[in-house]
Amino acid sequence: MTVSAFEHPFLSGLLGDEEVSRLLSPEAEITAMLAFEAALATAQAKSGLIPDASAQAIAAACASFSPDIAKLKQATGRDGVVVPELVRQLRGAIGVEAAPHIHFGATSQDVIDTALMLRLKSVAALLAGRLQDLAERFGEVDRAHGSRAMMGHTRMQAALPIKVSDRVDAWRHPLIRQKHLLAAFAEDGFALQFGGAVGTLEKLGDHAAQVRAMVAAELGLADAPQWQSQRSRLAEFAGILATISGSLGKFGQDIALLAQMGDEITLSGGGASSAMAHKQNPVAAEALVALSRYTAVQLSGMQLAMVHEQERSGAAWTLEWLVLPHIVMAAGAGLRLAGELAFNITALGRDAPRDI
Amino acid sequence: MTVSAFEHPFLSGLLGDEEVSRLLSPEAEITAMLAFEAALATAQAKSGLIPDASAQAIAAACASFSPDIAKLKQATGRDGVVVPELVRQLRGAIGVEAAPHIHFGATSQDVIDTALMLRLKSVAALLAGRLQDLAERFGEVDRAHGSRAMMGHTRMQAALPIKVSDRVDAWRHPLIRQKHLLAAFAEDGFALQFGGAVGTLEKLGDHAAQVRAMVAAELGLADAPQWQSQRSRLAEFAGILATISGSLGKFGQDIALLAQMGDEITLSGGGASSAMAHKQNPVAAEALVALSRYTAVQLSGMQLAMVHEQERSGAAWTLEWLVLPHIVMAAGAGLRLAGELAFNITALGRDAPRDI
Amino acid sequence: MTVSAFEHPFLSGLLGDEEVSRLLSPEAEITAMLAFEAALATAQAKSGLIPDASAQAIAAACASFSPDIAKLKQATGRDGVVVPELVRQLRGAIGVEAAPHIHFGATSQDVIDTALMLRLKSVAALLAGRLQDLAERFGEVDRAHGSRAMMGHTRMQAALPIKVSDRVDAWRHPLIRQKHLLAAFAEDGFALQFGGAVGTLEKLGDHAAQVRAMVAAELGLADAPQWQSQRSRLAEFAGILATISGSLGKFGQDIALLAQMGDEITLSGGGASSAMAHKQNPVAAEALVALSRYTAVQLSGMQLAMVHEQERSGAAWTLEWLVLPHIVMAAGAGLRLAGELAFNITALGRDAPRDI
Amino acid sequence: MTVSAFEHPFLSGLLGDEEVSRLLSPEAEITAMLAFEAALATAQAKSGLIPDASAQAIAAACASFSPDIAKLKQATGRDGVVVPELVRQLRGAIGVEAAPHIHFGATSQDVIDTALMLRLKSVAALLAGRLQDLAERFGEVDRAHGSRAMMGHTRMQAALPIKVSDRVDAWRHPLIRQKHLLAAFAEDGFALQFGGAVGTLEKLGDHAAQVRAMVAAELGLADAPQWQSQRSRLAEFAGILATISGSLGKFGQDIALLAQMGDEITLSGGGASSAMAHKQNPVAAEALVALSRYTAVQLSGMQLAMVHEQERSGAAWTLEWLVLPHIVMAAGAGLRLAGELAFNITALGRDAPRDI
Repeated sequence: MTVSAFEHPFLSGLLGDEEVSRLLSPEAEITAMLAFEAALATAQAKSGLIPDASAQAIAAACASFSPDIAKLKQATGRDGVVVPELVRQLRGAIGVEAAPHIHFGATSQDVIDTALMLRLKSVAALLAGRLQDLAERFGEVDRAHGSRAMMGHTRMQAALPIKVSDRVDAWRHPLIRQKHLLAAFAEDGFALQFGGAVGTLEKLGDHAAQVRAMVAAELGLADAPQWQSQRSRLAEFAGILATISGSLGKFGQDIALLAQMGDEITLSGGGASSAMAHKQNPVAAEALVALSRYTAVQLSGMQLAMVHEQERSGAAWTLEWLVLPHIVMAAGAGLRLAGELAFNITALGRDAPRDI
Repeated sequence: MTVSAFEHPFLSGLLGDEEVSRLLSPEAEITAMLAFEAALATAQAKSGLIPDASAQAIAAACASFSPDIAKLKQATGRDGVVVPELVRQLRGAIGVEAAPHIHFGATSQDVIDTALMLRLKSVAALLAGRLQDLAERFGEVDRAHGSRAMMGHTRMQAALPIKVSDRVDAWRHPLIRQKHLLAAFAEDGFALQFGGAVGTLEKLGDHAAQVRAMVAAELGLADAPQWQSQRSRLAEFAGILATISGSLGKFGQDIALLAQMGDEITLSGGGASSAMAHKQNPVAAEALVALSRYTAVQLSGMQLAMVHEQERSGAAWTLEWLVLPHIVMAAGAGLRLAGELAFNITALGRDAPRDI
Repeated sequence: MTVSAFEHPFLSGLLGDEEVSRLLSPEAEITAMLAFEAALATAQAKSGLIPDASAQAIAAACASFSPDIAKLKQATGRDGVVVPELVRQLRGAIGVEAAPHIHFGATSQDVIDTALMLRLKSVAALLAGRLQDLAERFGEVDRAHGSRAMMGHTRMQAALPIKVSDRVDAWRHPLIRQKHLLAAFAEDGFALQFGGAVGTLEKLGDHAAQVRAMVAAELGLADAPQWQSQRSRLAEFAGILATISGSLGKFGQDIALLAQMGDEITLSGGGASSAMAHKQNPVAAEALVALSRYTAVQLSGMQLAMVHEQERSGAAWTLEWLVLPHIVMAAGAGLRLAGELAFNITALGRDAPRDI
Repeated sequence: MTVSAFEHPFLSGLLGDEEVSRLLSPEAEITAMLAFEAALATAQAKSGLIPDASAQAIAAACASFSPDIAKLKQATGRDGVVVPELVRQLRGAIGVEAAPHIHFGATSQDVIDTALMLRLKSVAALLAGRLQDLAERFGEVDRAHGSRAMMGHTRMQAALPIKVSDRVDAWRHPLIRQKHLLAAFAEDGFALQFGGAVGTLEKLGDHAAQVRAMVAAELGLADAPQWQSQRSRLAEFAGILATISGSLGKFGQDIALLAQMGDEITLSGGGASSAMAHKQNPVAAEALVALSRYTAVQLSGMQLAMVHEQERSGAAWTLEWLVLPHIVMAAGAGLRLAGELAFNITALGRDAPRDI
């Protein structure tokens, strides 16, 4: 049982996201790392760098290998990274002939960063779909209630009447903008990392570019020069998720304030109080505010991790591991909660403009 | 399997801390919540607010109750807080006579904040002991190597020779300062939260102060007026842990730089590389730097959570849940790693001052 | 004399940027606010909403008006925003006939956000030019030293030799990526804000869209629906600047580490020490690291400011004012320093690959 | 004219603090640096390390010296620190005989960190006085309105009636706690920094401890071993200011929400709108929320600056310079605004408890 609220046995009922958890999970990570090793061996066999038989043995093993997790954990404590032990276990599984040919010319970072990109790509597709769904749900709210009036508030004061459509637009428009940002990022952002020990693919000689392109194609990632100490991509991706969380926080804050005023919104599905039976707490709305603040803070961590000294920084890389998965979880949970909350809006606004 | 590096199946080998995980765990949280309910009932019976028999039934149930976790999770998603469902389950367990007397006059926040304080108090004791041990370990390093010379560096440049003692003092002194901060905090920082629905203990009438004092005494916490929307205590506690992490980051950075220069330190237990057999990576040192940056960033989250609107803020409170456990985990992991790293210093400095 | 290091009378020698200061300055802000009022009046006259004579009087006044700053300051303290007093002063300057027609249908936020966009647009052009120059300077470093060898370092340990080109690529490539991000943002990011009291342009009736388009065209900004509570644009822009700062921090950290090792770099222009005449401190390199951490932290502030409650949030908006100018200053100073530092690299690498 | 909102020509009307600006100002910094040099020379003369006549010349010059600021700025850009040039100018002013005896055995960091501590000590006294005044003002609010009723709100929902006293206590109690934290810090927190080139006071021989004690006594600072790479003190001090800002943010948020509901508070002095004459915006309340979020974010920067590598980190030290003055300014502005806002509460609560 984990203390992390995102996967905590009961807090995850509020703050978790099972789909995102699954896509990011350690199981998915191992699968992705094995996919990299298999794709690498296959491409290297095609390039004549390793024997076909070895590549087949490697690919077969990677399709089904189940590592000894306890040993991975122990080795990660020692090596700072899981790959040396994972490769050691794989070598044991594939037999002495193929053993020297697995992970050939690669380094730990190639495996881990690529496995990260594979998972982020699938998460991004999920989140893009949810952005679309949420924008459509706001469209439905607009169609149902948009022509009604609500009091516009500026600086925490009643100002002038607006239409419900005006408010809903302020929730929906940024999501569309962010969906485009995600799409633009996806064009070349989810890129293979493959550089070898110091980024030069020195063991692959003239085959380096060809192998890299084949591995990228096999894995469905963009082919790009190694970016092992260039973390702009990851900071950008985290930034997009943070702006999504920020916009959802604005939606949540608005709903919480509407719920407090009480006369322009009806929500189904509010939360119970252990002390006051009469209350209907706008739980999801508050959680959206909390998640947006959480993500805002985490983004600093990803920015700090851009100072990746020399060819590889253990410190900066480890910082990413601590921060990025939680940003992704928060974005996922936020989109899930926002979708539920938008669905729970059963009335918004009032019949006619009221005077101030 | 969790994506959080602190409890991830293999990353936790580097970044986890089993003792701290156990003290903070959901299991420990449930135990602490039940301890609150039992102590409350006992105190209320002594004050004549509820029947003795009910208090005994409640205490007996709380000593052994094992909640239905799936239902807790589902209810937390709905209510934003686990307590209404936990109390509902408890009522089912203690029978109809005692049922109305459990959680009497209390609210969810009383249960959760008090359960947090109980766990933080035990974690703080663990961390204070580790601070003491680490300071002593630095003392041993000093006794073994302190009179030797090393090159003092300022602004990333060799400056003048110093003694190893000088450097070790810069690692040790802040820890002693922080141990005093922890001790000063512990004087009244780990306080019972007990306020009822809106902080006024309105259902307890004249017995409020007496019951609160008894519950605090029973749980070993400080007796203090309710602090449900006053989160300074938690921000202070997080701040102390962050300064500890910061000082450990300085130690880690120094070790990593010594390891890079290579001529003034010998470390045992360094990490392997998957690509270069000759390397001995200063893994724990880098992890300390990463953890210090991580904690520095998280502290913002706790500060933000101080803006706890009105009598209770769901948004600010939820933000604490997302942030604080990870700050505590990071401080624990940092102290564990720093202890190991200090132990692995087998040589430091050089025989005689070298010229610049 | 200001305490802010960016414009501090002597710290600005290190951390300031006179060009960016000028573009962001309060003087530039007043000029931009007046430009908005002039463009608005002109467009409204063309649409028949206000008399031509009034528009001419307003435009003439705005071209030369010099407000009473002391009164602006006092009023900002009272109103939270400078515009009501600025408009009051302007009304006094333009005479009673034109007075009712200035600022017609507009609100404070229209003036301030638009004036911000005007200045950000000019800063962005400046920074894009500097990115280009810096990338070219790195190209020169590459041409001069790229074929030489240097020791590749991973996890703070010597690993394998690389070419100087490999390292320089890791500095240059992200800048090119970020230049594209800036260009993509500039397509529609620098947008007019024009919404009136609550975002509905309720006073302009059917002329709203036409006037908005004319004002945008006049000011050289993108025409877009009001975004007064949709701050994604500003968070995105700040995010791009933060990734630039992050990449420059990586460059600075690498130079500082090279300077510490001392055998693969020669820098001109290093800093003096007040205690040790022999030192040449890599001052600009360290400042780049500091600026990158600074900006990483500030970005959180811009993300937090996305939670802009209702139609206008004084709290979130004020937070932007505190944070964004410093992010821009830091990006400017970073690009300036990086350019100087790159220019001061007089030697990089070594003649032949050395063995490990 | 500075872009920093704290000293911006008109934004400072809202966000500035003239008293704090003055205590932190570059002028005050120069005065404090000169005070250090004078105290050092005086103590060294008493210890026989330098001639009495030189010490008198140095003290006399430091009492009235006005440096060439343009040269300080230029040199800071080159050296990363102002002290070498300041000392050079001072040497010119005191004549060739005394010149070699100024700054003897000291380094730039001694001057700058000590000058910082001198200013922070005076700011802290000012802020402690304001905390006291604000607590008393809340006491007056309590005496005037405390027995009246107001609706308690939890999770953004009306809950149960409370007394105005209950709410005011939640504003006042944390301030008292924080006043104690400031007082505890002041016991030994404002400490002389004196270590020489690498922290060993190697030029002072057996006189080191004596001179340090005399300088500390002369300057009214605590005598402590050099802490040049141990920045826990500064992070702690910043942390205390951040918790103050956090508590003031809670007060501001509560007032803004009361002002929005409108039926339980009357405020004088609210802000005007450029578009809506009927509004009275709770400007100071919103500014308190903004300042609390600002400070929360900045605190990360001070925590990050704890990773002060080796004997002196240019990067970490520079980061402090960018961050700490703004934290202090924000705390000052917050206390000023909170005092004004508390004074402007002319009514709070309602006559009798209302039902829910």
